[in-house]
Amino acid sequence: MASMAALLSKSPIQPLSFLKSTQPSPHPQLGFSKLSVSWPRRSPVCRISSNLIEPDGGRLVDLVVPEGVEREVRRRDAVACPKIKLSGIDLEWVHVLSEGWASPLTGFMRESEFLQTLHFNSIRLHDGSVVNMSVPIVLAIDDAQKREIGDRRRVALVDANDKPVAILSDIEIYKHNKGERIARTWGTIAPGLPYVEETITKAGNWLIGGDLEVIEPIKYNDGLDHYRLSPAQLREEFSRRNADAVFAFQLRNPVHNGHALLMTDTRRRLLEMGYKNPVLLLHPLGGFTKADDVPLSWRIKQHEKVLEEGVLNPETTVVAIFPSPMHYAGPTEVQWHAKSRINAGANFYIVGRDPAGMSHPTENRDLYDADHGKKVLSMAPGLEKLNILPFKVAAYDKKQMKMDFFDPSRPQDFLFISGTKMRNLAKNRENPPDGFMCPGGWKVLCEYYGSLVSPLDGNKLLEAVPA
Amino acid sequence: MASMAALLSKSPIQPLSFLKSTQPSPHPQLGFSKLSVSWPRRSPVCRISSNLIEPDGGRLVDLVVPEGVEREVRRRDAVACPKIKLSGIDLEWVHVLSEGWASPLTGFMRESEFLQTLHFNSIRLHDGSVVNMSVPIVLAIDDAQKREIGDRRRVALVDANDKPVAILSDIEIYKHNKGERIARTWGTIAPGLPYVEETITKAGNWLIGGDLEVIEPIKYNDGLDHYRLSPAQLREEFSRRNADAVFAFQLRNPVHNGHALLMTDTRRRLLEMGYKNPVLLLHPLGGFTKADDVPLSWRIKQHEKVLEEGVLNPETTVVAIFPSPMHYAGPTEVQWHAKSRINAGANFYIVGRDPAGMSHPTENRDLYDADHGKKVLSMAPGLEKLNILPFKVAAYDKKQMKMDFFDPSRPQDFLFISGTKMRNLAKNRENPPDGFMCPGGWKVLCEYYGSLVSPLDGNKLLEAVPA
Repeated sequence: MASMAALLSKSPIQPLSFLKSTQPSPHPQLGFSKLSVSWPRRSPVCRISSNLIEPDGGRLVDLVVPEGVEREVRRRDAVACPKIKLSGIDLEWVHVLSEGWASPLTGFMRESEFLQTLHFNSIRLHDGSVVNMSVPIVLAIDDAQKREIGDRRRVALVDANDKPVAILSDIEIYKHNKGERIARTWGTIAPGLPYVEETITKAGNWLIGGDLEVIEPIKYNDGLDHYRLSPAQLREEFSRRNADAVFAFQLRNPVHNGHALLMTDTRRRLLEMGYKNPVLLLHPLGGFTKADDVPLSWRIKQHEKVLEEGVLNPETTVVAIFPSPMHYAGPTEVQWHAKSRINAGANFYIVGRDPAGMSHPTENRDLYDADHGKKVLSMAPGLEKLNILPFKVAAYDKKQMKMDFFDPSRPQDFLFISGTKMRNLAKNRENPPDGFMCPGGWKVLCEYYGSLVSPLDGNKLLEAVPA
Repeated sequence: MASMAALLSKSPIQPLSFLKSTQPSPHPQLGFSKLSVSWPRRSPVCRISSNLIEPDGGRLVDLVVPEGVEREVRRRDAVACPKIKLSGIDLEWVHVLSEGWASPLTGFMRESEFLQTLHFNSIRLHDGSVVNMSVPIVLAIDDAQKREIGDRRRVALVDANDKPVAILSDIEIYKHNKGERIARTWGTIAPGLPYVEETITKAGNWLIGGDLEVIEPIKYNDGLDHYRLSPAQLREEFSRRNADAVFAFQLRNPVHNGHALLMTDTRRRLLEMGYKNPVLLLHPLGGFTKADDVPLSWRIKQHEKVLEEGVLNPETTVVAIFPSPMHYAGPTEVQWHAKSRINAGANFYIVGRDPAGMSHPTENRDLYDADHGKKVLSMAPGLEKLNILPFKVAAYDKKQMKMDFFDPSRPQDFLFISGTKMRNLAKNRENPPDGFMCPGGWKVLCEYYGSLVSPLDGNKLLEAVPA
């Protein structure tokens, strides 16, 4: 096993001073060392040398059982096991775990991992090194299921149609203190937290952890599976493009020209720094989102337009879907968003204002301080090797008639177009100012909001959000 | 500055395998290396070599201004500063900070320290090393105080009589999100948490951090100040006794013979391991406690009897008061209890069932899972150098008529005497079974509970606890 000192000395990337990272750098020397990346145990790809950042724990986890005899054996094994039916969100986590987004996790968390996640937002490995892990990736069961499992050592996880999806082995069942989990993850127990209401409130009082073996790759058959690239596939793609830097942009909203400006500007600065081919990972979240977010299929249509119309350069952009569900847990969750992208090969992460935030469900304010996300991210254990790029504020420059970085010396020239304002314009099929978003992308948004209008009701919008 | 690798290589102590520590050891070699301990900047004691564990951050913080001209200058400076009046608990924290229990903290937390404490239970230092820090040590101010301070860079902290106690310099004022602080520290926002009700609920909406200079040592003049040994004084005492291991026992309750058995048994085992002179730090908490805990003065009387009557050996025991207030924050707080004892020179820490726990204030259960404290402690970042000794369960052995470690092969022989049962016996001046507690110690308890009986009311107890 590598000592912590040896692991630390491998940390390849340094914060860029021009981007004013607030992260203290224990390793002041600059440079980009070539690392040998461990490829997944079961990947068909042979071991290759790559410039990409090392995955957490040194090896990208791959929990999908290889095709052939082994897979058939597991499928038969599953029949004899006690069954746990997975919810949609459970299945998203199986997907996330199976592809190694949560490397080095090899399954749903056991209690020691759960407690470390809640208390420390990080997990200490056997060799003494630390990886970031801020949101619990857990599977809940109820009293009856616990009784049914008894002292069995493994269970089968099945989908809504009772089809076996995975086997969980060497299981550990422990208490699911839901209130404590919620308080420590969200920093509040306010009613109306979307993930909590969707999946925790009604969940059982036990959690079951263990080692996961996924019988076949998770597919959704929604026409978007080709966008669902695994971390291993993304690493292959970045290597194929000879990327020497990968900068990730996590989003769950349509891309406007302010976002695009930030992304192209980041690439420009990386080139200035001496990187030869920085590649953007434009990485919309594809799992559970709250009812008033734009659905994935519409967002992907919008992103496609942004590339088709040349706002972002397809040559230097990889668009893929990140399969995780959304917690809306602000500073806690942004760490997960960053950590999982390390595993996909990103060594730069763009963090926005109030990342993974939302309005407080019962009070007239944001749930989190808008600055806490980037502050917490910059200090988070296990993310020292990632370069955090704070979001620069862009707004509509009325003089130049385009989105530009806000210039505090002439605030009167800038117009801030909020999400609410954007939604209202699109709902009413009005146009935003020229240069706010590419026309094709805007049309997609108008179509989406148009689809919410009840044909019986004329202009009355079917609000996707209950309140 | 030392690199993290260099710091790690200094880690002097290893978990004892016989005590079944659950803490993974990144440094498998055993042994007890001699370390040069940095003495406080301003300590009158000259730099000495010592076997004791290194304080967090490598240097024991001492924030008391030296007597003489410098102290007089600070006293005069204070007059010209905006004033913040300290509550009793604030003053306890000034005490804690001033003596370096929270080393390397040099004052009330600024926002970066506060956020790291809430999210990671630890703080990363400039050299990349990590120290444990699980409870926020913060000072709240209200809107009016914030306005009064304006853009001043330092403030005076004054006691209830407006006497200057300390100066806080290079200040930072930031939002006090009380709900989030409570949820992340306690894992609940249930009403009735004693520390929360005492000091957070009614506190202001801002926190003020900065560097603390304490004008003179904090004294309480309650006849117990001679028990309030600072970490530097404790280190001197352990060195004077030639201790080659120090094991700390944190408590806020009377000592019964089960506790004593555990402490003498720990010493025996340490001797067996090859240590020549393990010394016990019997370290009752002296700050804020909830209304139904036995008050400090009575507990100290009781502890004195335990030593006088030879239940614990005064030759190998140091009794001192730990000045911190009590959070009752279970697994979060036990880390603070352990970390602060490292700074006082302890390299072994005995952790009990449900440490720093209490009953849930509104539900009929314990607030925390009884095992979480020792699990979280064993995995806590920054405590790798501390040896965690899990508490062995002692109970009254009816056959042997003494407290002994519970023997699961003959459960019928053992009697568990709960805190509630003990309190009820003492209140009614009944005796517990012979061998449960030394007679002098029991008498003190009966006197305390007797003092709660109203003279007008005969046997009706004045319950110290409201409900």
